[in-house]
This record gives sequence, C-alpha cells and structure tokens, in this order.
Amino acid sequence: MTQRGTLGVAVIGTGRMGADHVRRLDEVVGGAHVAAVVDIDGDRAEAIAGRLDGATAYTDPAAAMAAADVDAVLIASPGPAHEAALLEALDRDLPVLCEKPLTPDAASALRVLEAETRLGHRRVQVGFMRRYDAEYMRLKSLLDAGDFGRTLMLHCRHRNTSTPPGFTEQMMINDSVVHEIDATRWLLDQEITAVTVLKPTPSSAAPGALSDPQFVLFETSGGAVVDVEIFVNCGFGYQVRCEAVGERGTALIGDAHGLTVNAAGRWGGEIAPDFRQRFEDAYDREVRHWVDATRRGLVEGPSVWDGYAAAVVCEAGVRAQTAGTRVAVELPERPVMYR
Amino acid sequence: MTQRGTLGVAVIGTGRMGADHVRRLDEVVGGAHVAAVVDIDGDRAEAIAGRLDGATAYTDPAAAMAAADVDAVLIASPGPAHEAALLEALDRDLPVLCEKPLTPDAASALRVLEAETRLGHRRVQVGFMRRYDAEYMRLKSLLDAGDFGRTLMLHCRHRNTSTPPGFTEQMMINDSVVHEIDATRWLLDQEITAVTVLKPTPSSAAPGALSDPQFVLFETSGGAVVDVEIFVNCGFGYQVRCEAVGERGTALIGDAHGLTVNAAGRWGGEIAPDFRQRFEDAYDREVRHWVDATRRGLVEGPSVWDGYAAAVVCEAGVRAQTAGTRVAVELPERPVMYR
Amino acid sequence: MTQRGTLGVAVIGTGRMGADHVRRLDEVVGGAHVAAVVDIDGDRAEAIAGRLDGATAYTDPAAAMAAADVDAVLIASPGPAHEAALLEALDRDLPVLCEKPLTPDAASALRVLEAETRLGHRRVQVGFMRRYDAEYMRLKSLLDAGDFGRTLMLHCRHRNTSTPPGFTEQMMINDSVVHEIDATRWLLDQEITAVTVLKPTPSSAAPGALSDPQFVLFETSGGAVVDVEIFVNCGFGYQVRCEAVGERGTALIGDAHGLTVNAAGRWGGEIAPDFRQRFEDAYDREVRHWVDATRRGLVEGPSVWDGYAAAVVCEAGVRAQTAGTRVAVELPERPVMYR
Amino acid sequence: MTQRGTLGVAVIGTGRMGADHVRRLDEVVGGAHVAAVVDIDGDRAEAIAGRLDGATAYTDPAAAMAAADVDAVLIASPGPAHEAALLEALDRDLPVLCEKPLTPDAASALRVLEAETRLGHRRVQVGFMRRYDAEYMRLKSLLDAGDFGRTLMLHCRHRNTSTPPGFTEQMMINDSVVHEIDATRWLLDQEITAVTVLKPTPSSAAPGALSDPQFVLFETSGGAVVDVEIFVNCGFGYQVRCEAVGERGTALIGDAHGLTVNAAGRWGGEIAPDFRQRFEDAYDREVRHWVDATRRGLVEGPSVWDGYAAAVVCEAGVRAQTAGTRVAVELPERPVMYR
Repeated sequence: MTQRGTLGVAVIGTGRMGADHVRRLDEVVGGAHVAAVVDIDGDRAEAIAGRLDGATAYTDPAAAMAAADVDAVLIASPGPAHEAALLEALDRDLPVLCEKPLTPDAASALRVLEAETRLGHRRVQVGFMRRYDAEYMRLKSLLDAGDFGRTLMLHCRHRNTSTPPGFTEQMMINDSVVHEIDATRWLLDQEITAVTVLKPTPSSAAPGALSDPQFVLFETSGGAVVDVEIFVNCGFGYQVRCEAVGERGTALIGDAHGLTVNAAGRWGGEIAPDFRQRFEDAYDREVRHWVDATRRGLVEGPSVWDGYAAAVVCEAGVRAQTAGTRVAVELPERPVMYR
Repeated sequence: MTQRGTLGVAVIGTGRMGADHVRRLDEVVGGAHVAAVVDIDGDRAEAIAGRLDGATAYTDPAAAMAAADVDAVLIASPGPAHEAALLEALDRDLPVLCEKPLTPDAASALRVLEAETRLGHRRVQVGFMRRYDAEYMRLKSLLDAGDFGRTLMLHCRHRNTSTPPGFTEQMMINDSVVHEIDATRWLLDQEITAVTVLKPTPSSAAPGALSDPQFVLFETSGGAVVDVEIFVNCGFGYQVRCEAVGERGTALIGDAHGLTVNAAGRWGGEIAPDFRQRFEDAYDREVRHWVDATRRGLVEGPSVWDGYAAAVVCEAGVRAQTAGTRVAVELPERPVMYR
Repeated sequence: MTQRGTLGVAVIGTGRMGADHVRRLDEVVGGAHVAAVVDIDGDRAEAIAGRLDGATAYTDPAAAMAAADVDAVLIASPGPAHEAALLEALDRDLPVLCEKPLTPDAASALRVLEAETRLGHRRVQVGFMRRYDAEYMRLKSLLDAGDFGRTLMLHCRHRNTSTPPGFTEQMMINDSVVHEIDATRWLLDQEITAVTVLKPTPSSAAPGALSDPQFVLFETSGGAVVDVEIFVNCGFGYQVRCEAVGERGTALIGDAHGLTVNAAGRWGGEIAPDFRQRFEDAYDREVRHWVDATRRGLVEGPSVWDGYAAAVVCEAGVRAQTAGTRVAVELPERPVMYR
Repeated sequence: MTQRGTLGVAVIGTGRMGADHVRRLDEVVGGAHVAAVVDIDGDRAEAIAGRLDGATAYTDPAAAMAAADVDAVLIASPGPAHEAALLEALDRDLPVLCEKPLTPDAASALRVLEAETRLGHRRVQVGFMRRYDAEYMRLKSLLDAGDFGRTLMLHCRHRNTSTPPGFTEQMMINDSVVHEIDATRWLLDQEITAVTVLKPTPSSAAPGALSDPQFVLFETSGGAVVDVEIFVNCGFGYQVRCEAVGERGTALIGDAHGLTVNAAGRWGGEIAPDFRQRFEDAYDREVRHWVDATRRGLVEGPSVWDGYAAAVVCEAGVRAQTAGTRVAVELPERPVMYR
C-alpha cells in the first residue's frame, strides 16, 4: 500500500469502459488511485496517465502488474485479452476486478477457473455490475428474506434503443442476455439447466438479417422458469426490468421514475437512452465495494465460477438460437472453493 | 318488440353469471327487459321471475324461446347445456348472447358453427367480455392505429387469488387462459398456430396435485410470440395484465390504479379480489352493446368462429400441458361468413 | 308509472348537457325513458323528441310537468332558468334531478330551499356528479372508515386545457371550483367557514385579463385546511386530483392510469382532454342512482341544502378574489330536514 | 495539498451528521481525506481520529484550522457554534462546507455575510443538499430549459414519521421548511417576499402542544405562489415531494419508486423511514462536488447569501406562525459578489 493507504490500481484497457473506470477511481471512489494505465496504444496510455497525479503508462499488462506501486488490477480490455491478463494476475496473486465477460468462451473461462483453483483462494471479481444496482439489491434482499416463499418465475425485459454496426445475433446472448443469466443465477442461487430461444417475426427496425427481438427461456436447477425479452432495437430507450414471482407475492424492478411530467396531453417521463444512466450508480458501487473489500484483504462479489457458468450458458443459448429447440446446459461440479 | 321498444330477453341459467345478467338487464342496461327466466330448477326460476315486472319462469329453454314476448336469448347455463340451447335459438333465428365457452369442446363448437353457417347469417355473440373492457379497448385501438408498427409479442399475466375445490389443471386452460386465447386472436387479428406449456416447480400454496403456476406460450399465424403466466393461487388478488411489444413502442394495461395510499411505511393501493371488480364494467358494456346492436338488427362482437377457434386452441393447450412439448394447432379454413 | 314500470322523465333543456342526458336515459340507463323533451326552441325539442319512441316535445316546462306520462324531471337548462322549474316541480311534488348549479346565486337558492322545506320532504337531487365517480366514492369510503384518523387537509388540483371565449374570473369559482366546494363538504362532512384566494402572476397562455391560475384556500368547521389549484388554461389536458391527508396516512385520487406506453424516449400515457372522458361514468352512475332511488320512492344524493351552501361559498370565493384577503362564510342553521 | 493531491479536511463536530461526513470523506468520496477531527468532547474526537489513517484529534476548531495538513473545513457542529467557526475559517481564507443552517438567526448570518464580503471572494458553501439530489437536479434543469414557460406555482410536501422529544413549532420552520425555502429560491431563482402559515386542527398523533401539520405559503419576487405541507408526525414515513406548475406543463419529483410489490391484497412499495435513505446520494454528491470544486480552486453551490436569505425567511415564517397572518420578508440588496 502507498502512503494514505489508498489502493494503487493498474487499469488495463482504456476504451470506453476502461476510461470510465479511470475517471471513477480518480474522482468518484475513495480509497484508491490509478497507479498504472495500460493500453497497447502507448500514446493513448500516456495521454490518460499524464492527466493523473502519480500514474505511469504501460503497453504491457505484465509490466504494469510488476510495478511496486500496483496493488490491484482492473481489467477492461477487449474480451479476448482477458485470459492472459487474468492468468498473469493470478500468477502474481494480485486482486482483480475483471469486466464481463470473464473470457469470451467457456473453454478459456475454464482455464482461468483452474488457475484460480490451483492458487487455492479467490482473487478475481467479475464485473456483473447489476448485483450492485440498488434496485437489484433490494430485490435480492426481498427474495432472500423469504416472505414471498420460493421464487417460481422471473419475467425479464432487456431493451436497447438500437445496435451499433456489426452487432450479431450471438451478441444478443453474449453481450446482453448474459446479464440476465448472471442475475438469474444470483437472484435464485440456482444454476441454469436448459435454454430455449423463440424468434418472433423480426422488427422491421432490426438492421440486416438480425432476428430482433428474441424471447429466451431458462429452466433452473430448482425448477424455476425464467423468460427474457431481448429487444436490442426497440427504438424508445434503454430499459431493464425484472419481475420475480414468488409463492405469495411478486416484486418488480426497473420502473423507478424520478420525474413525472404533465405536458402536451400526456403524463409520464423520460426513458434512459443507454445503460450508463441506468447503471452508473451500480458501476460506482461495484468499484467502491471492490476497493473496500480489497483494502480489507477480502475477495467478494461475482466469482470466476460465476463468469465460467455464464459462459457455459451463453454457449448453450447461442446453440438454442440456431437449433430452435431446448438445449440442455452441462456444468461440471462446482469446486468447493466457490460454494 | 314490446311497447317502449325494449328487447324482451330470455335468460337461460340462473347461477352466479345468469343471476347477475338478470340484475344487469333489469337495473343497469337500458333498452331491454327480462321476459323469461329459465332454469331446470323451476322453483329457482319462479323465485327470480317473481321479483321482476313482466317476466315468466320456464324450465325448458325451447318453451321460453317460443314465447311471443321473447325477442332474444342470453345463455348463461353450464357449458354442457350450451349446444342444445344454441341450436334451438339458431333454429328459431333468434339473436343470442352466449356466455363463454361457446361449448365445452371443439367438436360441439364445430356443430354450432355449421348450424349458423347453414342459417347463412350471424346470430350469436360469444361472451368474451374482455373485448369490452375499457383498457383492452384502448390497447386494441392503439395497436390498430399502427403507430407502434407490427405487434411482435404480448406478455400476459393472469393471476387469481385462489381456486375453488375441484379446480383442475385443464381448467387453467379452459376457464382461465381461454381469455388470453381470445384476447390474442382479437388484439393481433391472427390465429394461434402452436402452444407450449412450461411448468415451474409448483407453489406450495397450490392445492393437491395442481401444477400451479404454469407458463403458456403461443405462436401466431403472423409470427408473433405470446407468453401467459397463469397463476391461479397467487394469494394476493386478481390481476390481469397485458403488455404489447410493437416495433417502435410498448403498451401495458392492467395497472390502472384509482386510489393511491401512504400508510404504515408503505405507498400503494388495493388489488381487486376477483374478476367481478376488475371486469364489472366490461360485462355492463358487453350486454349494453349486444342489446343496442340487436335492437338495430345487427350482430357484432365475438363470433361463433371465435368461440370455435378458442375451443380448438384450448384442446391443443391441454395436450401441451401433458406432452411437455410444442403442440401445433390445426384449424380448418375460416368460412367466408366470418371473415 | 307507465307499463314496464319505467320512469317517465321530462328533460328540460337540450343544450350539451341536456342532449347528453336524453341519450343517457334512452340508451345507457335502465328503468327510465324520456317522456318529454322541453326547450324554448320548439323545433329543437321536436327534433330530439321525434327520434325517441314515445316522447313528446314541449316549450313550456310547466306543461311538460303536467303531462300524465311524466313521473320525474331532469333540469338541464341554463342556470337562470332553474329556479322557476324547481319551484314548479316542487309545487307538483315531482322528483327532480337538477344539474348544478342549483341556481346562480345564494338568494335564489335560498328561495328553493324554503320551498322544499315548506313541502316538508326532499324532492330534489343536485347534480354534483363527483359524488358518483368511482375514485371519489372509494376515497369517501376510506375516509369514513376512519383508518387514517381525522382528515386534516385536502390538496386539490383542477386543471382544464383551455377556456372558451367569455370565460371570466368569477366562472373559475362558480363553474369550476364549485366542484371542489361540494367535494370538500361531502368528503369531510363539514361546512366551509372561510375562503382565501391567492393569484400568482398569470400564465401568458391565459386569455385577456383572466388571472389564471389561482390558488384557493378553504377553512372548514372542523378545522381542516383545503387548498385548490384552479388552472383553466393549463394547456395539457383535463386533470382533477385530490389528496386527503389524515392523521395516519394519505390517499390520492386522480391518477388512474389505464394504459402505459413506452415510445420515443418516454414512458407514460394520455391525459383526458376534457371532463366528459374523466367523469362520463360518474354521470351514468348519478342518473342511474337517481332513477333507481326515485323508482323506490326515495330521494338521495346531494340535497338542496348542498346546492345552497355551495352557492354561499361561491359568493364568498368571488368576494375573496377581489378582496385579496380571507373572507368568512356565513351560513344560517341547517334545517332539520337536511341533517 | 498533501501527497496524492487529496484534500486534507478538518471535520468540526462529530454528532450524527459529523460522524457521517467523516465516514463519507474516508470511504465514499475520492480526492479527500480526513486530516483533523474536532469535538469539544476530546475523547470522542480521539476515538474517531484513531480509527483513521493520518487524522489528528482536536478540541479547538482554530487549532485544527491552523494545522499544516488541513486544506479545508467541514462544519457539522451544532448551529450556535457555526458563526465562530465560519469567522475563523474566513479569517484564514480556508474553503468551508457548512452544514445548514449557516447560523441560527439572521443577525449572526448577516455578520458572516459581512465577513465574507470583506474578504472579497466566496469561500463558504452552505449544506443545502437538496440541490445535489438527482431528482431536484433534473427538476431544476427542466425548469431552466424553459419548455414549460415560467413557473407559476410549487406544491411541496415535507413529511416526517415522527419528531424527537423537544421538537418545537419553530423547528418545523427552522429545521424542516428551511429546505423548501432554499429549494424555492433555487428552483425559481427568485427571493421569497411573504410568508403565511395556516394551522389545521392538529393531528392527535402530534406530541404535546405541537400544532402539526401546518400549511405554509410563500409569495416570491416573480409572483409565484408556493405551498408547503409540513407534517412532522405523519406516522407513515419520510416523504419529500415537489410539483412545479409551469405555463405549459407540470413536473413532479419525490415519487421515485424502485421496487413495486404485489402481496396480501395490495400493490405498492416501501416509504423511506427517514431522510438518510432519501437523500444519502445527495449528501455524497454534495461532498464530492465540494471536494472537486475545492481542488480546482473554485467555490460553488449554495452561498452565504443563500444561508442568510433562508435565515431571514425562517424568522418571517416563525412570526407568521404566531401572527396567523401574512408576514412580509424584508431583505437588503444582494451584494454584487453573490449575483
């Protein structure tokens, strides 16, 4: 630890998410500072590090992790670069916050899982930030309190205004529904055992051959049924809703409405244009929680197992998109370390 | 027509629905009066007719229909008695409002369809009263106006507080989901082409072997996907919701909230205990509409074809409950008279 | 009573409200029929009566009331014509439903009050239709049940899209706030004892010299404080809200939202353009209730005392608009007949 | 500035607010650290400072401000101690965040105003944290954008579950309504020119002689009318709402609802029990904003003039409580420095 006891963090990757995390560590979250900025584009790393007090620029993640003033690592590089950075950090026994996905596929996720299992203790938190959203946290508390009995179903909506060029059907699962996959596993504390995908006649607003929206069904190890509307070109805004149906009641999140307006013949309010407005506080809370836990020597939050399980379900989901039928999910036994 | 031009109606069946329709024709709806009260329990028919000015009691529907002061027939007897009463009324070319179901199965519904087709003009309106609910009517108008583009999905919730003794799994389809079957066909103006039923681990509040809740999926001739949560022992009240997802927007009904309260640490309001509060106005509007149309010599509203198609989809739904797989719906070509 | 036992009603006045009541008695409400149509414009009366089965046209209210087939009177003529018609009907001991206002000023209202008092029993119901609105009725039930303790305050909003030409500041009290005056008296079961009117800098949308909006304060005999925002050119729709603040909770009506839409970056729904959408059901229920009670020989609903008290408070309100200060309301003792 | 460029803050007062600010500076907000903890109870100051890395305990505010590692001052001591601490900090030209009230009365507030005016530049930010609440910020943006025209009225509700022992009628103005006083001045960018207080018959839940609730009316320099329901023993929770009525629309905040539940016959959600849940994020944002601005050498946020004006209006409000009539507010001309 440096003087003042703040955590020196190496931020790997300075794209949209990485740059945002640099800002967050510098301005928003207490108890940490950016010690290293890593990007394969050295000029970009230099430019960002130069604006910060005491941050060094690197092009090589390993070099940054070797630096004396680096206490922890935040991985925000593109998915394919995650595995190498994770293995390096585990090799050095450094605490990690890794943006989702853990890695782009189940095979590589399994290698990371094995590396951490060999290490013998958790070091990595995966960036499923919805677990830090105030509404999801309240929902989780409510379900865990058990007042509504067992949770029988989840009804989820995941809507984006529109997709960037090159957005594929697989990305609907891997980039979007992956959040509902983690939320389902976390809220229910159950594994997903099967996936089915239904495709309505696509919206004429969907670009090219993208079959959008889709309707995804999960079955879980405890017998719950979960449905997810994924509609990535809904046109009207960013909207994430989840209704949990218990034996004695239901609970709905995603309709928090801060400002209600009457004007021009209508009542209502604005819908957030994208995920940053909706989950900005969740990102802040996630990083703050990670910094706090790390300073206390703890590893909490979504684990490598959670990242691996999500990857396995995503692969089943993509197969279900093609197959048009129910696809079973096969998971190995969960290592003791993650129970 | 009698003096004053009011419609003389024979009400067949004086159970809960029939007695309520007698009250409605007598007190609530203008332009009609109860001319005949029919029940196999003659004492009961007498008791009810005796409270009305100018109504005669019968035990035989045909005798009532033959009476000179009977201009139209409202069938509210148990489902198995519907076919005979419908055929008798069609034989006499009398206007009919028939409570749902048209008949209890597709084969008998087809016989009624054939009888009306032979008659050569519509005489029967089927009692799918949701089409007369103010919220459903607004939703239908909105979808038909086309501002949101094609409708891609419907998300439906149908929750009852609890079931009476003897309520079976088949009744979840035939008595409850049948409303969503008609609403889907009406809102989308499409036929249902396949049904799938998923069963979560049942709620411990479900009586006996009833697998409650269930999650029903419809596919339609226009490629829409419709999901229905049917939960008949949800414990907290009666709730019917429908969200239509179009290409450019969504519309939700079922959350009309008349009175919002702050008290004892909570904001919110009451949930209707059963369908009567929720759909009372729809019943009034349905009967008023039928009386008005009949006085004008018109037959409007849900047709025998709608009753028949619902019966066919219900049978597929019940098979899907057992099969655990997708069941295709086979409908004959729609007669010209019903297009 | 005529054959069929339906009530023969003379409708006096065939302007917007009168014509609407003719339609309501003919098509919507059971148990009554239009026996006489009265208008000083004889052609207009003939035209309307001619469309109905068994209705006679008159130009003289007294002649209509003298007809053998007239059992009851619905007064919907302009306010200045009410006194004569009311006195005539009381003279003949006929049941009356009189559109608000009872009469245009307190002095004439007092003369009607004295006539009915001399008659010795109630015959007149005044058309304060909010008492028949489903939301107001639920609010009244809630307050009367006493779960929230005494009602300490009411916060009222009364907003109209825009005013017709010639709308004056006095009409803001006499035509608009008069509804809140009656609602206050009815909900609290207390008299209004003082009125204060505050005038913000007017909206630039207010026509001519109309000081719109205004903020009206009532004090009541039980010590409650009631505030009313009256804004008759709010531009965005018709909106009537009332929040009751009790000792242990609050209850709000006026936000019943039947259809919620997501579209074009916004969530929400439509605001009714005028009072007919908002209170159509209340008018239906009011007339139905009056017909039912009258057929049973009863007189219920808002009384002549309620109409008189409203007139007295309106006069105080108009004085308060000019004075800019608190104006006390002076009511005589309430006759025993109205307690 | 210390190494790492973080701001060394002396926190004066370690009661509930002070202790919370210590936690906030230590854990939540980046860019600052607690350098000094000041309390007249030296043991308490030691205990808190001892838990922090690099914080020193003091009993004398002046001694803390003189310390080399103190860059800025956060005053959270009881109101009567504010004036001395503020004058000391201004004497040393130190940046200050002073919890509201600036000082307990207008005369002492004026002395602070004169001291800062003599200094010639702003150094003090007053802790009116509602200006940092996300909903209030959105409301302010909306009003400033001008889409709804001029703001004509504000309708405010300020409800607390219950009051601690010793809570007086004056505190309803000075501790509670003071927030609406500042919000009014800030949202409208106008001064308050008159105050009237109406007192309904008190709730039986109000302790002792406390006349609770009260209804407070403000008139402003731009002709707006503002009403505030202050109800500090409402029993059901903490609720702060504000509806702004513009020429072409209205906007309401305070009903943000994160989690909606159906259970036991009711829909709805929880009401926050006190201001900490409701405004926790606002406190975080306020302190973060102050730290950021201070590190950049800026002074922003509510000024000493705002604190002084609030004190003057509070004094008028307390006089209006007693007088039962309208009390005019007399403010001197605003110094150029605060325009």
